[in-house]
Amino acid sequence: MIVSCYLNGQTLPTGKHTIAINDLGLMRGYAIFDFCRTANGKPFLLPQYLSRFRNSARLMDLDLAYSDEQITSAVYELLEMSKLPFAGIRFLLTGGYTEDSFTPTRPNFMITIEELSQVSAEVAENGVKLMSYEYQREMAEVKTTNYTVALRLRKRVQEQNAYDILYHSNGNVLELTRSNFFIVKDNTVVTAATDILQGITRQTVLHLAKAQYKVEVREVKFSELAQADEAFFTGTNKKIVPVVKVDDLQIGNGKAGKVTKNLYQAFLEYEKTY
Amino acid sequence: MIVSCYLNGQTLPTGKHTIAINDLGLMRGYAIFDFCRTANGKPFLLPQYLSRFRNSARLMDLDLAYSDEQITSAVYELLEMSKLPFAGIRFLLTGGYTEDSFTPTRPNFMITIEELSQVSAEVAENGVKLMSYEYQREMAEVKTTNYTVALRLRKRVQEQNAYDILYHSNGNVLELTRSNFFIVKDNTVVTAATDILQGITRQTVLHLAKAQYKVEVREVKFSELAQADEAFFTGTNKKIVPVVKVDDLQIGNGKAGKVTKNLYQAFLEYEKTY
Repeated sequence: MIVSCYLNGQTLPTGKHTIAINDLGLMRGYAIFDFCRTANGKPFLLPQYLSRFRNSARLMDLDLAYSDEQITSAVYELLEMSKLPFAGIRFLLTGGYTEDSFTPTRPNFMITIEELSQVSAEVAENGVKLMSYEYQREMAEVKTTNYTVALRLRKRVQEQNAYDILYHSNGNVLELTRSNFFIVKDNTVVTAATDILQGITRQTVLHLAKAQYKVEVREVKFSELAQADEAFFTGTNKKIVPVVKVDDLQIGNGKAGKVTKNLYQAFLEYEKTY
Repeated sequence: MIVSCYLNGQTLPTGKHTIAINDLGLMRGYAIFDFCRTANGKPFLLPQYLSRFRNSARLMDLDLAYSDEQITSAVYELLEMSKLPFAGIRFLLTGGYTEDSFTPTRPNFMITIEELSQVSAEVAENGVKLMSYEYQREMAEVKTTNYTVALRLRKRVQEQNAYDILYHSNGNVLELTRSNFFIVKDNTVVTAATDILQGITRQTVLHLAKAQYKVEVREVKFSELAQADEAFFTGTNKKIVPVVKVDDLQIGNGKAGKVTKNLYQAFLEYEKTY
């Protein structure tokens, strides 16, 4: 639930979290966003998220008229107002209010603070099943608001008792709907290099993995899943979650792997000292 | 500009055309729409547009809880309120207000009446240039709100003095950003069969063309453009517009073609008697 919100430089009073319906984000999907969260009551890795947000804006030709300092200060103000011990922080930038339903105007920029639930201990410990689906996100390096494929397939995911979707294209494993995907083989940690969103948690995990393991960032073939010892995915809120099954294929011994668990502990440690 | 609006069964007072920011159309692009217009002061081909809208809803797994009768009656009420002699009518259906930024709830259904400007006489008579771009719309048969590619490229279109973009993929010509594309060769009217939005104006024009010409609905190779005698596009508001150039390639003799003009006259006649 959204508990506080900032729109174009102004904090909105509670209950007024609305936008005019001629916003191009709503009418034409012309919008980018980013999403981070707090750790120890403070925004976690905020500069990295803002940098990616700014990059998405540039690639979508949307003008972000606020500096990192202005945005950071607004985030702290909203967090203070929200009084949430653990919060999600969302940035949204749209093509603005259009007069003719197509031509962009001055972008609308929004920050929202949201209640956030953590991944259950059961999921974090025992891992999940994914459903594979042939798809590559449009402009995969840009964090657009286009999640139509994921949302359209939500019932199929449930029917298959899957936790999320694993996208693949041309024989390569890419990413989940909102997470990056990794495999582990012979103590080497492997993840896709391109045609994915460059996750901030992915970057952190790659950094932590390099201290202990061999790391490969490259094309990952779908066929490698059958030989993998372990698999996991990373995300802002989900941190690191073991993957024990993709469709009907068991990964490794079907349990959360040793490397995955080690990286999860290293991540929690890193977060604690941030 | 939006002059009147209906949201979930209620007419909104002027100045209150807003939606809460946790709508999934805004947050996740999970929305479909359709767009028709008036002719002779009445909704033109409304049942056809509603049928396509309902089909998009079904394919996107969005529940449209209103009957054609309810929607039609609301359209007439809004048109009456708007007092516009010539109006656009937009239907929008979104994944509803989400509590966790991802899970759909009861869809939001909106109808808006908008001021609409007609294509200039110069464009209708002399035709336009298109800029080609390699792209195929995701779920092309569904009228989603995803126009990110079109909006991101708007400056490039302007720089090239083009009127719009012609999408092509795997060597096949598909459609424009919001219009269907046709070529004419030896008095045969040709248009793409699949991987496009099935335009209502396209259907009408195909029907009218069959009375006078041979018609082919099939794969259209990009390479056929160089041999075409004429080209044109069709759209709800733009009706029929001649295409005289694609990038640097002149189509036919570089002027609006005879078949295009004939079909345009036939279309105006059909509209007048609707």
